Formats: sequence, structure tokens, C-alpha cells
Amino acid sequence: MTANAELARAIDAMPLIDHHAHSLLRPPLAERDLLDALTQAEHATDHAAIFDSQLGFALRRFCAPALGLPPFADAAEYLAARERLGFDEATRRLLGASGIRTYLIDDGHAPDRLLSDAQLAELASEGAGADGDRAGAAGDVRVHRIVRLERLAESVMSDAASGADFVDRLPVALEAAAASAVGFKTVAAYRGGLALDPAKPSPAELAEAAEAWHAASRRGGAASVRLVDPVIIRHLAWWALERGDAGGPGVLQVHVGFGDPDLRLDRADPFLLQPFIAATQATGGRIALLHCHPYLREASMLAHLFPHVFLDAGLAVAHVGANADTLVRESLDLAPFSKVLFSTDAWGVPERVLLGAAVWRDATTRVLGSYVAEHGWPVDEAIRVAELIAWRNADALYGRSFLEG
Amino acid sequence: MTANAELARAIDAMPLIDHHAHSLLRPPLAERDLLDALTQAEHATDHAAIFDSQLGFALRRFCAPALGLPPFADAAEYLAARERLGFDEATRRLLGASGIRTYLIDDGHAPDRLLSDAQLAELASEGAGADGDRAGAAGDVRVHRIVRLERLAESVMSDAASGADFVDRLPVALEAAAASAVGFKTVAAYRGGLALDPAKPSPAELAEAAEAWHAASRRGGAASVRLVDPVIIRHLAWWALERGDAGGPGVLQVHVGFGDPDLRLDRADPFLLQPFIAATQATGGRIALLHCHPYLREASMLAHLFPHVFLDAGLAVAHVGANADTLVRESLDLAPFSKVLFSTDAWGVPERVLLGAAVWRDATTRVLGSYVAEHGWPVDEAIRVAELIAWRNADALYGRSFLEG
Amino acid sequence: MTANAELARAIDAMPLIDHHAHSLLRPPLAERDLLDALTQAEHATDHAAIFDSQLGFALRRFCAPALGLPPFADAAEYLAARERLGFDEATRRLLGASGIRTYLIDDGHAPDRLLSDAQLAELASEGAGADGDRAGAAGDVRVHRIVRLERLAESVMSDAASGADFVDRLPVALEAAAASAVGFKTVAAYRGGLALDPAKPSPAELAEAAEAWHAASRRGGAASVRLVDPVIIRHLAWWALERGDAGGPGVLQVHVGFGDPDLRLDRADPFLLQPFIAATQATGGRIALLHCHPYLREASMLAHLFPHVFLDAGLAVAHVGANADTLVRESLDLAPFSKVLFSTDAWGVPERVLLGAAVWRDATTRVLGSYVAEHGWPVDEAIRVAELIAWRNADALYGRSFLEG
Repeated sequence: MTANAELARAIDAMPLIDHHAHSLLRPPLAERDLLDALTQAEHATDHAAIFDSQLGFALRRFCAPALGLPPFADAAEYLAARERLGFDEATRRLLGASGIRTYLIDDGHAPDRLLSDAQLAELASEGAGADGDRAGAAGDVRVHRIVRLERLAESVMSDAASGADFVDRLPVALEAAAASAVGFKTVAAYRGGLALDPAKPSPAELAEAAEAWHAASRRGGAASVRLVDPVIIRHLAWWALERGDAGGPGVLQVHVGFGDPDLRLDRADPFLLQPFIAATQATGGRIALLHCHPYLREASMLAHLFPHVFLDAGLAVAHVGANADTLVRESLDLAPFSKVLFSTDAWGVPERVLLGAAVWRDATTRVLGSYVAEHGWPVDEAIRVAELIAWRNADALYGRSFLEG
Repeated sequence: MTANAELARAIDAMPLIDHHAHSLLRPPLAERDLLDALTQAEHATDHAAIFDSQLGFALRRFCAPALGLPPFADAAEYLAARERLGFDEATRRLLGASGIRTYLIDDGHAPDRLLSDAQLAELASEGAGADGDRAGAAGDVRVHRIVRLERLAESVMSDAASGADFVDRLPVALEAAAASAVGFKTVAAYRGGLALDPAKPSPAELAEAAEAWHAASRRGGAASVRLVDPVIIRHLAWWALERGDAGGPGVLQVHVGFGDPDLRLDRADPFLLQPFIAATQATGGRIALLHCHPYLREASMLAHLFPHVFLDAGLAVAHVGANADTLVRESLDLAPFSKVLFSTDAWGVPERVLLGAAVWRDATTRVLGSYVAEHGWPVDEAIRVAELIAWRNADALYGRSFLEG
Repeated sequence: MTANAELARAIDAMPLIDHHAHSLLRPPLAERDLLDALTQAEHATDHAAIFDSQLGFALRRFCAPALGLPPFADAAEYLAARERLGFDEATRRLLGASGIRTYLIDDGHAPDRLLSDAQLAELASEGAGADGDRAGAAGDVRVHRIVRLERLAESVMSDAASGADFVDRLPVALEAAAASAVGFKTVAAYRGGLALDPAKPSPAELAEAAEAWHAASRRGGAASVRLVDPVIIRHLAWWALERGDAGGPGVLQVHVGFGDPDLRLDRADPFLLQPFIAATQATGGRIALLHCHPYLREASMLAHLFPHVFLDAGLAVAHVGANADTLVRESLDLAPFSKVLFSTDAWGVPERVLLGAAVWRDATTRVLGSYVAEHGWPVDEAIRVAELIAWRNADALYGRSFLEG
């Protein structure tokens, strides 16, 4: 077996820890909802825009065979096969083919439309059991929780009688959520951007901000409970970083770069977060920059410069399909290899889970393969680096042994 | 024939619609003017800076053979051959070898030094007729007009007796120009940058801005008629997007990224345009982000997120020569394939036309070829995607059948 | 010999001028100091973060053989071999293997911990003499001086009795330093960022700024002598650009992009420098944008647009190792080939010197090799372009014949 065939086989067989994903839409899954979940645009305005894209071609390459079709079966054939297999079987097959053994699930986006963690774990485990081709892939798939801080704070505010009441209730709610979670997440990028004031808010600042938010939320109806106050967002981020637990350090996931249309992309540049990163070095907490495209080189640079910064190249990898080599390469730019994680950021449909995994495996095989073929890397070292990203770094970052349950 | 040879042959034979270019300098063409037109720098200070560059090497590779020289003939040989052939024949050959069948011409930059549309169409048609090697390239080449909004507004202001008079005359002038045009263009990037306030100006705001501009223009002499007022620029952009016509939607071309030295490059980032893009989604108009280097991934991301956004990778493709694969690849990143267009942004000399086309064909062949060879794309699908970019998407965007005349 | 083998051999044999580097830490070199010098992070918190990185793998590939080990010897073997050889011999071998014949040394960072220029030149010359494999590499290695403007101004301020006294002493000190130097450097990127007001400060503005700085420096103890005043920084930059000398034009090196953690990366974008660049076109001075990652395409664009702008891809090339092709390619994007320079930005340890050179040679061979293989470049032209970057452009920029002594 050639070095690169050996590398390809090893990466194909590797179990994955998806350190940031979302659950799947509940059945029945309408075709419109499937298509909507395959784009970050607000609405899948036409099929062509979904299927005539890098994601569409990657879907035809990787998902069609999981449903028993030849690679590059067309859109109509694909949708028909999905319909024929039914929700459960299609889901099992697509999740099973991903080789993901552990999901860290952020339930912050439309959770009432999604499967429960137990339902997701069951379908994923059944799929893994049926995926006989992948050595070591059999057995239980586990689901852990990531707490989205803004959502939690909003739910506390909904029930709070005043700003002071919010401030009283918040730590209790955070601790309660943390008890069954492995980390936290902030969507500050969506709520004013990453140029956070680095200073930790004082109790007085927090109290004032809470009062103002409470007053505004009571004026404006339900929608205005949406948290955009920068003081409260910073307070939550500091809280997460300063909180260690039995399993390990406090991990704060931070959305960076590409996302939904309501994200201001120029404010989602991780370089804007540098003052906050510098200020939180001594907290003992760790920051995981999520996804990051088109700012992966910037994120990788920050992971080089600051010991508590990590990154992944999720979300966009599935969307850019045959261009994903560049993203995988950029994530391995300046960051120490111990700082790079795997995620899918899948939401809603199992296609995005499989694509996140399959495109990452494919691109990583090619990128590390070029390091072997053109830069003399020993193949066992390339396999070791792939394994760091696939699951070992996630264990180390979160202080767990996820694959052991 | 191998898959990639088939792809190369198909892309080489494809007719092109150049959806954004300028006309050519009138004869006689001084060597100094030729060199100046081959760089975006203010003046071609020395030959080495022109020929010892990616564009210079691409010119020797692609343009020398069109003039009957071997590839990589040197600069002196090239200039001598051009002199020997004369203006008309050199122009015919270079335009003919491009395979461009339709030009959408922006006459906003120094039009009095340039050939008329009829003259350009005649030379291009003669060249196409003589280019026997390219299947289907024979026949008439057509020229359509893109109206540069700032230039039109400036000419209206030159004649206006007052701000109010400008406001009265403007819609008449816009409609008159639009009657013989297929789209509009804004150089907002050169006139304060792309961070446009998203709000549509009210009539009162427009009146006030027009009055202030009129007063300033009457104080300062001819040069001060230059439009930099952001309210008027936004008004023009909204007008173009809201105006549909028989042929299709209102198309607004927006210069993005690399250009001339007087463009502030940090203000030409398309992410800055996001609020304006979000605000204009419901107009029915469409936005074409022009050229975009080094912001192609950003532009491609916006084309993913917003249904009315399109992009091209013109201008820089010719200038970066052997690096153009990256630009072509980036334009095919997140954007649906139906959103990517071809342009040269050529100005002044036919070398830039041929380079825009030849480098794009060469890079596209290699990029799509890698999708076939390494990502399993069926070759006929790769050819179909190339054809979308070469001409089909332009037809769809502008609501025309350009190649049929 | 194939074209690419010929290219590889030529690039391997080329002498290099390192137009921006620092000296080496004095012996004895503690392992902790070695590791600290191999990362831009504040402290090498663990070995894994150093060796499990692109730089670590490149070190094992290129530096291990220079110490007599097989490629990819592991970290423990490497450190043991270094210990066994001793400081002088390890340094000689690593410097010798780099093929660098001239260093332009910036002594602005911790110079009292570093070898003198004479000591560095002696070890480098001994190393070059022993490097029998590289044709033409034998003979003296020379060291020239780059004056770091902020450091010089700080030392003048330390001795100044008043702001006015500083203004009096400054030109004398600048001229004295310039007499033994070949160029100047500003770290404006670290001292407020590159968004410099383009206007040249008036004498009155300078006097006022000097007075304010003097007063602040006397209030705050030694650390507060640190120059961050934008008026004085701009004055220094203008002075350097306006000063020509017998050897050639005034050259101002400007740090851009990646650096130490105290650099605000979002303020180190060269596009922010555009107004200053535009304003200084007529000074006769030249600007060399240093290193530039992740802003190399931006820097290359500025070098295209402005005749007095040059760039290099130093520092990050060694750190990104097997990803360096992208950086080399980006430096050859829009910039005329006469504008691109070689540097290592090595500091403290000879590994960074060798890596800067070896990774650059390796990546340049592959990038130019692809231009030959895929874009038809004549191999002798590719070799000529490599030579421009390796040393000819440095001679031209600084107006010297460095390799002749």
C-alpha cells in the first residue's frame, strides 16, 4: 500500500468527535425544509441554487451512495430515494456513514423543531451499528450539550421581575445548565460583533445593563427579549471562561465568520476579538473559534499567539465542497496541531452531518497527503495529526474521554 | 480523449459574454499608452515593471501567438510585431482570439479617447470572422451599453441651473440613458467607499444634497462637479435597482476591490456593502459585484446569502496570470454556480481583452479539471458549469439572449 | 535534467540577501530560550505546541540534517544533537546551510541579549565556508544595519532635557545612525497601527508632540519612554523617506501583519497605510512592506499600484512550513517581480534563519516550477525571477552591491 493510500484508509476509518453541531428537524421532513437546511440563505428560492453549488455537487458525490444511489445521481433521483427510504432509514444511513461517534450539540437555534438529544443519539447509534464498512464505527453514539449563553440569558430575562431579579437568577440558571453540559457558546458575532470591550463588567455595570434590558424587554413585546446588550454578553463570556469544572476548564465556543444573513460579516472577524482574547488569558478558560471562514488564517494565527485559543473549520467545509482543501490547509497554518478541532455545524438535516464529515475526510486526506508526498512528512506522523483533529484534541480541550462514553 | 482534454476543448470553444469592459484607445496607439493601459498604476514607469510581472508573462504566453510570434517572445519582439501589423490588424487578431461574442461596455472612464461602440464592434467582428480555429466563433460581435451612474449624474449637474433643476432633470436623463442600455454601474467604491447607509434617501434628503452639490460645483470649477455625495450615490443605486424593464430586472454593477490607485482599498470590501444589500432584497433589482480581488471569497459568500447578488472575477484575472486559478476557485466557493459571471474589465488595449479571456479559460480549465480528476465530477457537468459562467448566467441576469443578437 | 530539476538546482545554489533579520541569542542557549524563540507566542508553554506545528515539522525536515541527523528525527534527538554539537558548531551549521550571504540586521528587539554584528558575521562566514555542497556559498558573509526609528527616538528622549531638546537632538542622532546603516524601519504597526494620518507633521506639531511625550515620560518611569505618539512616528517615517544618501534612496521598512501578541492584528493591515503611501510617492524614498501574512495579496496589490512600494514574505514562511507555497504565490500576485524581496525575520536562534531560507527555497521551487510546468514559462525566465527575489532586487532597492561586500 502506498503512503497516501495508507493515509486515506486511516482517515476514512477514524472516529470523529463533532464538537459543534445542532440536532435534526423532526419528521415528517418536507422537501422545502430539506432544501432550506442546505443553504445559509434565508430561503431556498430555487432548486438550482441548492444543487448547482459546491454543496450540491458534494451531496451528489457523498450522500447519494449512502442512500444506495450511484455517485452524482441527480437531484430528482436523490429526492426520490430519500422519500422511498423514509425519514428514519435515510437519517440512519447518512449519520452512520459520517463516522461521527460523539456530538456536542448547541440547542440555541429553533430547538422546538428539532429531535431531542435522545432521539438523535438513537438514530445515530443505529446508523453507526449498520455502517459495517468503517472499522471501529459500531457501537453507541453519544450526545453532549453545549449551552448557548445568549439563549439562556434570554430565558432567564423572560421570567425576571426586574433587572436585579435577572442578576439574581442568572448564576443559578447558568450553573444548572452547566451541570449537564460540556461547554458554552456565544453568538456575540450576531449580537453586535466580535469587537468586544475587553474589560470584565463590574457588578454595577451588570446591574445597570440588566435593568435597561429588562425595561426595554417589557416595552417591546416578546421579540425584544433578544439579548444585544454588550455588557451582558461580555459578562456571560467572562463567566464561562472563569468557570472550571470537574471535567476540565471552562470552554467558550465563539461563532466566527460565515453564518446566516443577519450576521454582519465584517464584524465577525476574529482579529476584532483580539483585545478580549488577550484580556482573558489568565482566566484558566479556553476559547474555541468556530468555523471561521473566510477568516481561518486569522483564527489560526490567534491560536498560535494565545495559548488558550483553539479553532475549527466547520460549517463552510461542507458548503465549499471541492474547495475545502484550502480551508483545511488554512486551519493548519500557524496554529499548533493540538489546537485544531473537527466540527460540522450541521443543522436540521443529516446530509449536513455526512457532508461535514466526508468533505473534511476527503480534504484532510489530500492536504496531509501533499505534506507526505511533497514535504517528506512520515505517513505515521500525518495519521497522528489527523487523529488529533478528528478526536484527540476535543478530548483534551474539554477534559473528557468522549469516545469511552 | 481524456475527460480533462474534453473539458479543455469545450472551454476553449465556448463563446463568451464579457459583462463588463471598456472600449479601446483610438489609433495611433503610442507605446507609452499601450504600457500605461497594461497596469493599474498611474504611469508605466518602466518596461520591466510591465513585462516582469504576471501580466507580462501571460501576455507573452497568450498574446504573442495571436500576433504570429512564438509563445514567450520577448518584449521587444512583441512591440515590433505589433508595430508591423498595425493598429487594425493587431486589434482584430487579439480580439478575435478572445472568443468574446458580446461586450457590455461601461463608457465611464475617458470615453473621448476610446473607439465608439460601432468601431469596436466592427473590429471585433472582423477578428471573430478570422479566428477560424474556434468553432462557432465566426459571425457578428455585439456591443451593449452599461450606464455609469455617477458620470451621468455629473453630466446632468453640469447643465443644471440649481439643485432642484438637477433633481428634475435626473430621471429624464436616467430614462434616456437606460433606453439604450442593459444595466447600470456605480463606482461608489471610488467615491467614499462601499459602507453605504442602507436607507433609501427621501425626496427631501435628495433635494438638500443636490442643492449642496450644485453650490459646491459652482464654486470650484469643472473638477468639482465630481460626484462624491453619498446621498446622491445611494439615490442612484436605489433607482437602478428599483427600475425593471422589458428585458429584465434592473441590474446594478458595483465595483469591488482592486482598481486604480485613487480607490481606497479598505473601503472597497464588499462586506461593507452588506447592510445596503440586505436593504435592497425586495426591490426586484440585482447587484453584480465586479471583479472583487482580493475579496472574492467575501463576494462569493454574499452571493450565497442574498438571492439578488452576483459576482465576477474580472480585471485581476488577467493581472495575476499564472495565479489566476486561485481567483477562479474563490469565485466558485460559496456562490451558487448560477451567480458567477465572466468579465475582462479590459480598458484601452486589446491585449487586456485577450488576456481576460485566455487566462480565464486556462484557469477555469485547470480548476474544473481538478474537480473532475480529484472530486469525481462528471465531465459533462463541469462543462455545463463552465458554460453557465461563460455566457448563460449573463443571459439570465440581464434577461436577454445576447448571443442571438 | 528536466526543467524542474534544473530550476530546483538553480534555486538551491542561489546566494540570498536577507533584507530583514535580527541577531542570535548569546551562548549559553537554554532549551527554554530556544523554544521561546521558535514561536511568536509569549512563552513556549509546552514542547508539543512547538514541535507539533508546521514550524516544528519543517525544523525536523530541514534543520535535523544540518545537525547530522536523518530528516524528521524527533524533538528529543534534535535537542540532544544540538547539545552535543555545542552552540558555535550548531550555529555555524545552521547558518551555513541557509546560503544567506548578507544580512540586514534590525537591532530593535532585545539587542543586549544578542550577538554583536561582528560575532554574527564570523559564525555565519565560518558556516558558509564549511557548506561545501552549495556552489558559490563559500566566502565572507556580511552584516549591515537597519535602524529602528522608534527605538532610536526613545533613546534620544531618554537623554533629552525637554521636548525642544529632543527635537534638537533627533536629527543629529538620526544622521549618526544612518551613517552606518543601509535603511530604516518603523514598527508603527505595534504603536497604534498602520492607519497613519498621511500629512507630514509641521515643525509646530512636532514640537508640541515632543513636549507632551517628554512630560509623559518623566511622569511615568522608564517604561513610559515607549514611543506611541503618532505625530512623532509619522515625522520619523517622513524623515526616512525624504532622506536619500550616497548609496541610494531612503528605504523605510514597515512591519505589516503577523508579529508578536502585543500587535493589534486588525491595525496591521497594509491597506490602512494606503493614504500615507499615496502621500509619500514624491519623496524619492521607498517603502518595504515586511512579511505581511495574512495580508500578502494586499501588500502585493499596493506594490502594483505605487512605484515606491516593495514587499517580502518573511517571518510567516518559516512558521507555516508546508503551507508556504501559498505565501510565496501571493507575494508574486500583482507586484512586479522587481518589487519582491527575500527575508527571514529570524530572531534569536539559527533554526529560524535556516528555516526562513530553506522553506522559501522549497516553496519557490514548487511555485515557479508550476509556472513552468503548467503555464509554459521558460525555465531560464523562472530562474531569473527567483534570482530577482533572492538577491538582485535587494541590491536595486538599497542601491548597493551587497554580495560584492
